[in-house]
Amino acid sequence: AGPFQPSEHQHVRYNPLRDDWVLVSAHRMRRPWQGQVEKPPQEDVPRCDLSNPLCPGAVRANGEVNPQYTSTFVFDNDFPALQPDAPEPDACDHPLFQAASARGVCKVMCFHPWSDLTLPLMSLAEIRAVIDKWAELAVELGASYPWVQIFENKGAMMGCSNPHPHCQVWASNFLPNEARLEERTQRQHLQEHGVPLLLEYARLEAQRKERLVVENAHWLVVVPYWAVWPFQTLLLPRRHVCRLQELSDSERDSLASIMKRLLTKYDNLFEVSFPYSMGWHGAPTGPHLGADSGHWQLHAHYYPPLLRSAAVRKFMVGYEMLAQAQRDLTPEQAAERLRALPEEHYRGRPR
Amino acid sequence: AGPFQPSEHQHVRYNPLRDDWVLVSAHRMRRPWQGQVEKPPQEDVPRCDLSNPLCPGAVRANGEVNPQYTSTFVFDNDFPALQPDAPEPDACDHPLFQAASARGVCKVMCFHPWSDLTLPLMSLAEIRAVIDKWAELAVELGASYPWVQIFENKGAMMGCSNPHPHCQVWASNFLPNEARLEERTQRQHLQEHGVPLLLEYARLEAQRKERLVVENAHWLVVVPYWAVWPFQTLLLPRRHVCRLQELSDSERDSLASIMKRLLTKYDNLFEVSFPYSMGWHGAPTGPHLGADSGHWQLHAHYYPPLLRSAAVRKFMVGYEMLAQAQRDLTPEQAAERLRALPEEHYRGRPR
Ligand SMILES: O=P(O)(O)O[C@H]1O[C@H](CO)[C@@H](O)[C@H](O)[C@H]1O
Ligand SMILES: O=P(O)(O)O[C@H]1O[C@H](CO)[C@@H](O)[C@H](O)[C@H]1O
Repeated sequence: AGPFQPSEHQHVRYNPLRDDWVLVSAHRMRRPWQGQVEKPPQEDVPRCDLSNPLCPGAVRANGEVNPQYTSTFVFDNDFPALQPDAPEPDACDHPLFQAASARGVCKVMCFHPWSDLTLPLMSLAEIRAVIDKWAELAVELGASYPWVQIFENKGAMMGCSNPHPHCQVWASNFLPNEARLEERTQRQHLQEHGVPLLLEYARLEAQRKERLVVENAHWLVVVPYWAVWPFQTLLLPRRHVCRLQELSDSERDSLASIMKRLLTKYDNLFEVSFPYSMGWHGAPTGPHLGADSGHWQLHAHYYPPLLRSAAVRKFMVGYEMLAQAQRDLTPEQAAERLRALPEEHYRGRPR
Repeated sequence: AGPFQPSEHQHVRYNPLRDDWVLVSAHRMRRPWQGQVEKPPQEDVPRCDLSNPLCPGAVRANGEVNPQYTSTFVFDNDFPALQPDAPEPDACDHPLFQAASARGVCKVMCFHPWSDLTLPLMSLAEIRAVIDKWAELAVELGASYPWVQIFENKGAMMGCSNPHPHCQVWASNFLPNEARLEERTQRQHLQEHGVPLLLEYARLEAQRKERLVVENAHWLVVVPYWAVWPFQTLLLPRRHVCRLQELSDSERDSLASIMKRLLTKYDNLFEVSFPYSMGWHGAPTGPHLGADSGHWQLHAHYYPPLLRSAAVRKFMVGYEMLAQAQRDLTPEQAAERLRALPEEHYRGRPR
């Protein structure tokens, strides 16, 4: 078989943030694909459609009329998975049948009044407005809720049911699974190594460079060593920052810039509005605001499903659901491809 | 808000087998769906197509010609994610960059010579042949490999790229994530409660009945209390059994019968060949064969993605990937719907 080459020889890699493993079998890219082919995303979304409940002036499910907003616009999700007032479940009668209360709020944030303007096509000032609103919601909802999950589902392939560019914010009275996991692994890493896990990781990746996609004075984006999705990335500050709301003015400006660069590359990869789910993770809030959060480092995960083209995605199914995630190209190969792409958007801003 | 009702009031439920939680927000079923609509699965698969590498007499990617098989047919995956001879990765130079060797084999098993015959349409004797072959492979590959993952991806929606009914078997020199998790939780449960987790769980569900879908002398199928996918089920033996190969003759016959009943109900739910990923979990093998495995209980997980109809699936995306799984109907509601369905297949066996 010759000496070990990650792009030739399958191996497993450890994800220290989730304490699990991924199987990397890069030679699988040679497998011909005869499975499901995806519909390309709708390219010509009308700028304003009054029948779309996310547009300025449109009527929403609850009968309210949206204002003629000119920047971001936040409203309560009309079909929230979390509500502030659900009653407590009955006491559990057995350890194998445990339920607990779930309370919270779900908000929707439109990024911009235009339905045809996605984040990579927005100006830096427009993206900055989104970042400021994220920080504002993190403060507002984080005052009482322990976890405020900001996330964007982009593209129908990622379960997004409305083409108007938007994200969601779900705040809960509990720490969700992923938060509990990252809480544990980051706490343990700081205890054992004396430095926050993702701060150390960012420093090392900035030196090693082979998984770097874009970087600037305050931020870097890497395809993490343990990436599961083909073009998964991790957006990391260089400074130790626990929560979005702690970002300085210049850090927010340079975040807008690095987001625009990353998302432009994503769109350029297959010349399509690139689908993904993304979200922010930072130190817990609410009752945790007083506690020591030094083990946390703010970061965003981007999970895009496309693998070979705009029409062929990676399926995380049988083996992945029952045993372990498996990927078909190395993180280094993915990073190299993203790095090589232009930072000019293939379509450009619509006029 | 009135007294707590699981079908009205969101709550979280604990999964003792994975040590994590699921958010149940059943009122979300009222949300109108305007997102992605799935193509219905191909209904008229030709019985024999010599250009399909899984058919009797067809030529595979490696040039081999399939025999004129008349029952199951097993061959080595022509594009394996795991191979027996990959070299060892270089020693890790940092705890945040850990790789390890991955060696194994990947096999494909055709269930029957006919491409138009899925499991629910097969006779009990034909299904029994599949079960016997599973047990045989579990013994053969389990002689040296610690984990033998038997799984079926059914339907293009679940990443299946060939309509000929088949499953896969991936054996590895490592315990995959899900195996490690269930190893830990089952071991701990036995230590703390003196009874295997899933043995106790099956006994309780057999009494409570509200999540039961089908049962017979040796087996039961429930929508587990902590189900994540809308119509997810768990297939459990009543007796304490660690591995597939330990099943007696009559247990195998009644397994064939309960599989046929479950899968017929699945197809009848939306009158479509029901997509899912399924797989078997049992005690580790290879070097673990000598160790005490009393905490393990054999079981199969079925993870079907459809939610509202043959065309509308559940997306496990933003909140689910970044925070926690969320479901839109209660497990009890799902079980009730499955229970109410006829056990006669809506199409019947093709002639
Ligand atoms: O092995 P197949 O059928 O070619 O591929 C399918 O199952 C594999 C194992 O779950 C997945 O990794 C692939 O993404 C999926 O398309
Ligand atoms: O909230 P939406 O956009 O209606 O719904 C989408 O995102 C949710 C949160 O990730 C998921 O639970 C849904 O399955 C998905 O379709």
